[in-house]
Amino acid sequence: MSQALDGLRVLDLSRVLAGPYTTMVLADLGADVVKIELPGTGDDARAFPPHVDGESVYFMSLNRNKRSMALDLKNPSGHELFLELVQQADVLVENFRPGAMARLGLAYEDLAPVNPRLIYAALSGFGQTGPYSSRPAYDSVLQAMGGIMSITGPEGGPSTRVGTSIADITAGLFGTIGILAALAKRHETGVGQMVDVAMLDCQVAILENAIARYAATGVAPGPIGNRHPSVFPFEPFDTADGQIMVAAGNDALWARLCAVIDCQDLADDPRFATNPLRHENYDAMRAALAEAFPKRTTAEWQRLLDEAGIPNGPINSVADVVNDPQVQSREMIQTVDHPTAGETLLPGIPIKLGTTPGAIRRPAPMLGEHTAEIVAEWLGCSPERLARWRDQGAFGA
Amino acid sequence: MSQALDGLRVLDLSRVLAGPYTTMVLADLGADVVKIELPGTGDDARAFPPHVDGESVYFMSLNRNKRSMALDLKNPSGHELFLELVQQADVLVENFRPGAMARLGLAYEDLAPVNPRLIYAALSGFGQTGPYSSRPAYDSVLQAMGGIMSITGPEGGPSTRVGTSIADITAGLFGTIGILAALAKRHETGVGQMVDVAMLDCQVAILENAIARYAATGVAPGPIGNRHPSVFPFEPFDTADGQIMVAAGNDALWARLCAVIDCQDLADDPRFATNPLRHENYDAMRAALAEAFPKRTTAEWQRLLDEAGIPNGPINSVADVVNDPQVQSREMIQTVDHPTAGETLLPGIPIKLGTTPGAIRRPAPMLGEHTAEIVAEWLGCSPERLARWRDQGAFGA
Repeated sequence: MSQALDGLRVLDLSRVLAGPYTTMVLADLGADVVKIELPGTGDDARAFPPHVDGESVYFMSLNRNKRSMALDLKNPSGHELFLELVQQADVLVENFRPGAMARLGLAYEDLAPVNPRLIYAALSGFGQTGPYSSRPAYDSVLQAMGGIMSITGPEGGPSTRVGTSIADITAGLFGTIGILAALAKRHETGVGQMVDVAMLDCQVAILENAIARYAATGVAPGPIGNRHPSVFPFEPFDTADGQIMVAAGNDALWARLCAVIDCQDLADDPRFATNPLRHENYDAMRAALAEAFPKRTTAEWQRLLDEAGIPNGPINSVADVVNDPQVQSREMIQTVDHPTAGETLLPGIPIKLGTTPGAIRRPAPMLGEHTAEIVAEWLGCSPERLARWRDQGAFGA
Repeated sequence: MSQALDGLRVLDLSRVLAGPYTTMVLADLGADVVKIELPGTGDDARAFPPHVDGESVYFMSLNRNKRSMALDLKNPSGHELFLELVQQADVLVENFRPGAMARLGLAYEDLAPVNPRLIYAALSGFGQTGPYSSRPAYDSVLQAMGGIMSITGPEGGPSTRVGTSIADITAGLFGTIGILAALAKRHETGVGQMVDVAMLDCQVAILENAIARYAATGVAPGPIGNRHPSVFPFEPFDTADGQIMVAAGNDALWARLCAVIDCQDLADDPRFATNPLRHENYDAMRAALAEAFPKRTTAEWQRLLDEAGIPNGPINSVADVVNDPQVQSREMIQTVDHPTAGETLLPGIPIKLGTTPGAIRRPAPMLGEHTAEIVAEWLGCSPERLARWRDQGAFGA
């Protein structure tokens, strides 16, 4: 079946997470992603634990649907071969520290003359400009500096890291959007451009209304545990056997919630009649609800709240998520067979396109697995020329 | 200056956060986004506190660059006018509960015959298919059900909500990617398609390697506070006057870190020689570092760690973020003048395009502010026809 990004050729120099997440999303939607890896070691993430039969599950989860070519960009023949690939590429993605690509002679300014149609996406911690541009950075540093940690965590308690690498992943998503927007423009102009995405900028962008709230009130928000900053009740409660998240986002839902928990007195209580009043009398509201929920199990409450149309759900572990009927029905957990590691579970594709759906077509590649195939396909080059490049050290010593 | 998505016409029926985030990103990159709002009340988010001179900062932070038309889709004239707008649109975005658009006669199947080029993006809690499809949902419920809460929070402690509405925002980002991928395909086929994005699916997608780790080990990961699941040390330490996040992601950085904190004995200690060993002897490593960092202030450590090239950063509050020199240099905090609320701070645009940069061109609209202007521009319609629609109740009673 045809896919949305069929025929889009992506040269992927990126490692670890932010860049590989971008190229994973592109590959999932049909792009032909060629992962250029350092001969010998490859993407750093190949070394990240845990491993199954020598293969990193971290690496495997991010690099499905890609092909791998081992190429030494510091070797003159490797460099020459790379420039030939650039001529055939639509998109280049890299996440080196700013300046590294220029030292290889592969900055956007070097490559645009080689292929004016090239869209060049550079993902980095702090961006290609500004006083921190050349600083090294990893996800946790950007989560700390970008403000999200300062609003995550127990109320009044320590700032808390988001448990997934959200700074890398959001940069990967904004990077993907930047590439596709540049592609839309290229359909009109025929010319590519540079896409500069900084993880720090993306952290600021996902703070969204926290910035406007700070500007309006002059107070920097802190961690508030599991409740919502401005809607009440919108938080988990302890049940007889666990917890349940309840989101009664407006006054009608509040009235229905009071009926479900069999507390007509709460529904009639003028202290809780509106969302601003529930904010003002939050502690009393919380106490009343916290008394009601332990009377039934999470599953019983789910059924009753569902019947009343009140948004609710359990706090699922990763194991619960993998086994959830909705998650399974949406094919959001897929089993992929890897030639050495065997069957792995991977997240599915959350962008469901009606006529050109994405697909997991292949497992993550072995290092350099597709070198010969790509050179033949992209460059139409003879076995003799391939052998010469190999002899000259383009693919490693 | 030209923008990447110039000329892309987007009909935006979405409310609150996930859909409006998608259309904000499109509008920031140049799309012409027309927000269709319920006459009288408009987007629910207009009522979300805090307000400045009657305007919600929540609403203002998500709806810059958009124009507003008040339109009653249940009124026959309003419905007719809407179908004329659909004929002129490239993209429609909605985030009603599945089924609601069909009840209005505005499902994808209804609109595709009206405009086969239309790209129709439906964002919802659980998606257009599957057993939970019709359930109501808000961000907190999806954070709970999607697993991210189960891996966020103090070590061994309670599951913790991410302090920003990450379930809405990631759905907004994946939705944007889906729209632009469908647009790329339309350049080839001339035909649009449906884009179905579920917040739950997106939460699964951002768990990424947590799923593969669970599959490899059989153990569902829990909250681990501020450290990293597989790299050590990669966590904050208390300093003389605050905290500093330190990410010494490999053995060379570990050796440099030991030198910076003046602890040659740690560098020589065989218990800490490699990342797997630092994992194994984590408590001892943590204790040694926790003893060293209180000897200097955060600013002093920053300078020393920067000199040594060790990724590090402070844990910034939202106030710190707003005033950070890098954030300011990247124009990630912008002052926007609103006609009634005055100056507001908004996050800037994290996608930096070299030749067609995005821009904040206008503040969030007043309800129905652009109704006449849009009808004239998109439909080329006469003042008489506009008056007739108005008389027939298309724009509200």
